[in-house]
Amino acid sequence: MQYESKMLQEIKEIPDAASNLLDEVESQVSQLVNIFNERQPNFIMTAARGSSDHAATFLKYLFEIQLGVPVVSLGPSISSIYESKLSLKNSLCIGISQSGQSPDTLSVISSVKNKECITASFTNNINSPLAQKSKFPISLNAGNEKSVAATKTFVNSLIVCLVLVAKISKDDELLNKIHRLPKMLDKAIGIQWSDLKNELANCNQLYTLGRGLSFAISNEASLKLIETCGIHASSYSSAEILHGPVEIVEENYPVLAFISRDAAEYSISSVCENLAVKKAKVFGTSNQLCVSKRLDFVTTGHPFTDPVALIASFYTFIENLALSRGRNPDQPRLLKKVTKTI
Amino acid sequence: MQYESKMLQEIKEIPDAASNLLDEVESQVSQLVNIFNERQPNFIMTAARGSSDHAATFLKYLFEIQLGVPVVSLGPSISSIYESKLSLKNSLCIGISQSGQSPDTLSVISSVKNKECITASFTNNINSPLAQKSKFPISLNAGNEKSVAATKTFVNSLIVCLVLVAKISKDDELLNKIHRLPKMLDKAIGIQWSDLKNELANCNQLYTLGRGLSFAISNEASLKLIETCGIHASSYSSAEILHGPVEIVEENYPVLAFISRDAAEYSISSVCENLAVKKAKVFGTSNQLCVSKRLDFVTTGHPFTDPVALIASFYTFIENLALSRGRNPDQPRLLKKVTKTI
Repeated sequence: MQYESKMLQEIKEIPDAASNLLDEVESQVSQLVNIFNERQPNFIMTAARGSSDHAATFLKYLFEIQLGVPVVSLGPSISSIYESKLSLKNSLCIGISQSGQSPDTLSVISSVKNKECITASFTNNINSPLAQKSKFPISLNAGNEKSVAATKTFVNSLIVCLVLVAKISKDDELLNKIHRLPKMLDKAIGIQWSDLKNELANCNQLYTLGRGLSFAISNEASLKLIETCGIHASSYSSAEILHGPVEIVEENYPVLAFISRDAAEYSISSVCENLAVKKAKVFGTSNQLCVSKRLDFVTTGHPFTDPVALIASFYTFIENLALSRGRNPDQPRLLKKVTKTI
Repeated sequence: MQYESKMLQEIKEIPDAASNLLDEVESQVSQLVNIFNERQPNFIMTAARGSSDHAATFLKYLFEIQLGVPVVSLGPSISSIYESKLSLKNSLCIGISQSGQSPDTLSVISSVKNKECITASFTNNINSPLAQKSKFPISLNAGNEKSVAATKTFVNSLIVCLVLVAKISKDDELLNKIHRLPKMLDKAIGIQWSDLKNELANCNQLYTLGRGLSFAISNEASLKLIETCGIHASSYSSAEILHGPVEIVEENYPVLAFISRDAAEYSISSVCENLAVKKAKVFGTSNQLCVSKRLDFVTTGHPFTDPVALIASFYTFIENLALSRGRNPDQPRLLKKVTKTI
C-alpha cells in the first residue's frame, strides 16, 4: 500500500469538512450576525498567528470590500508584551486560532474589558481557552487535524468569514455560491500542477503574489512552501513587489501568482506578464496570462469564493512537491502542531 | 578622490535632515494635534507603499502602545481596485509617501469624503498631489533625496510619527529625547558592523527580526537588503517566526535581529539565543545576547527613539555591504526613485 501522509489525508477531507461546517455554521453565527447589524461596529480587530493570521487577512479584505468596515490586524505583542489598553469603542474583536491555545492571541481577547467591544473566536476546539474567553465562539468544525501543516482548518476558517459576511449583508447570491463550495473544493483538490512541480524541484527561493483576497492565499502558500518544502518563499501584493522586492527577480526566478476572477485580475496578470517578459519563471491562475505559464484552476462563480478553491489546489500541489523533494510533510524539523508564543 | 554613492551622501545628511525637521515640525503638526485631541478619533488608517509603509508600521505600534488608538493598515487596492466605500466615522487617515505621487496611495486619501474623517499626509514634497489632497500635509523636510533607496526621508518620517505622539500625549520626556536624536543619529551612522559584513559577503538569503516598534525597522532593513544587495530577506516578528518560518533556519542560516531597550528585549533576545544554540548565525543589537553575536548600537534613552538609531546604523552598514558585494547602491537593476502603482 502506498504511503499517504496525514497532510494528504486531511486535504482529501477538505470537501467533507467544508460540508460539515456548512451544515451548522449559519445557526452558529446567527447571534453574532444580529449583534453586528444592531451595533454596526466602527471597526473590527483581529488577533492571530501563522495560517490563522492569513485567514484574518482574508477576513480583512472581505469586510472592507463587501461591508466597508475597516479591519485592524493587531500585533498580539501590543497586549502580551506592551500591555497597552486599546480603546475599542463599538468594535468587534476576533481571535483566530486552530488550537485556541497561543498565549499571545489569547491575551488580546482576555484583555478586552470594554463593554462596547464584541468578542468572537474561530477555533477548531470549542473547549479551548480562546473559545471560552470569547463571547461568540465559532467552531471551525473541521474534525481532528493531526498534520502539523494546517489545511482543512484553514479552508474552514475562510468559509466562516464568508458566511459571516454573506449573512451580515444578506447576500443570498454569495451564500448560494458558498454552499456550492464543497463540490468545487472536491474538484479543486483533484487539480495537478505538474509543470510547476518540475520547475520547483530544486529551487530554494521564490515569490508568491496575490491581490485583494488572493493576497491572503499568497501569504498562506508562502508559509506552506517554507514549512513543508524548506523553500524560502516571500509573499507580496502585485503592487507592493514593484516598490522594491522585484529587484531580485532575475532570469529564471520563480514566481507563483494566485489570481482570482475579480477586479484585480487584469492588474495582477499585467505584473506577471511584465516579469515573464523579463524571463522570470512566472506561473499563475488566470487565462489572461500568455507569456507566463497558466495553472489550472476551478471557477466557483463568485470573486469571493474563488480564492478558497485556489488554496485547496495549492495544498494538493505542495504535499506532492514536498514528497518529490524527499521531505515528509508530516515531520518538519522544528515545528510542532501547537505553537505557543508570548 | 574616493567614490561616494548618493546613498552614502544622504545617509551622512541624516543628522542635519533630522535637525532641520525638528526646527519646525512642532508648529507644522500643532493644528493636527489640536484636532486629534478635540475629536479623539476611534481609529487611525494608514495608506503607504514600500519604505513609507514601514514608517506606517512604526506609527501603528507607536499609537497603539502610547495612546491605545488602533491603527488600520489599508491595502490601497481596497480603494484603487475594489473602489470600496469605507466607513470612516471619526477617524484619522494618513497617507505616507516620500514623493507623494503613487496613484494607489493617493486614491485612498482622495476617496475620503466623510466629513468625520481627518486626512493628513507625510511627504517630502509639499506640492505633490498627496500633500495637496490632504487636509493636514506634513513636510518631511529632508531636502532633496536622489538615491533610489530612501534613507533620510524614512528617518524623518519616523520622527514625524514620534513628535505627533509626544505632542498628542503631552509627553515632555519623550519630546526631550526626540530633540536629542540628531546628536544620537550622528553617532549611529558612525557605527560599523564589520563582522556582519564579512558574514553576509556571499549570502543570498536571510531573515530579519524585530518586535513592536523594531518590527518596523526589521521590515525596512529587509527591503533594503533586497533592493541594494540582491539578498532575499524576509522580516518577521520574533513570535511569528516560530509559527512556521523558523523551519528553514538551519546551521549557518543568517539572522539579523533589531532589538531595542524596551519591554520586548528579553523576549526577542531569547528567540535569538535559541536559534544561535541551533547553530544559526544570529546577530542582534542587545547586550542580553551571549551565544548570538552582539552588534554595536546607540542607546537613545527612550524605548521609542532607540529604533530610529538602529535603522541609521543599518543604513551605513547596508551601503557598505552593497559596495563590498560589487553592487552600486545608486543603480538597482529594476527600480526607479518614484514608483507609481494602481
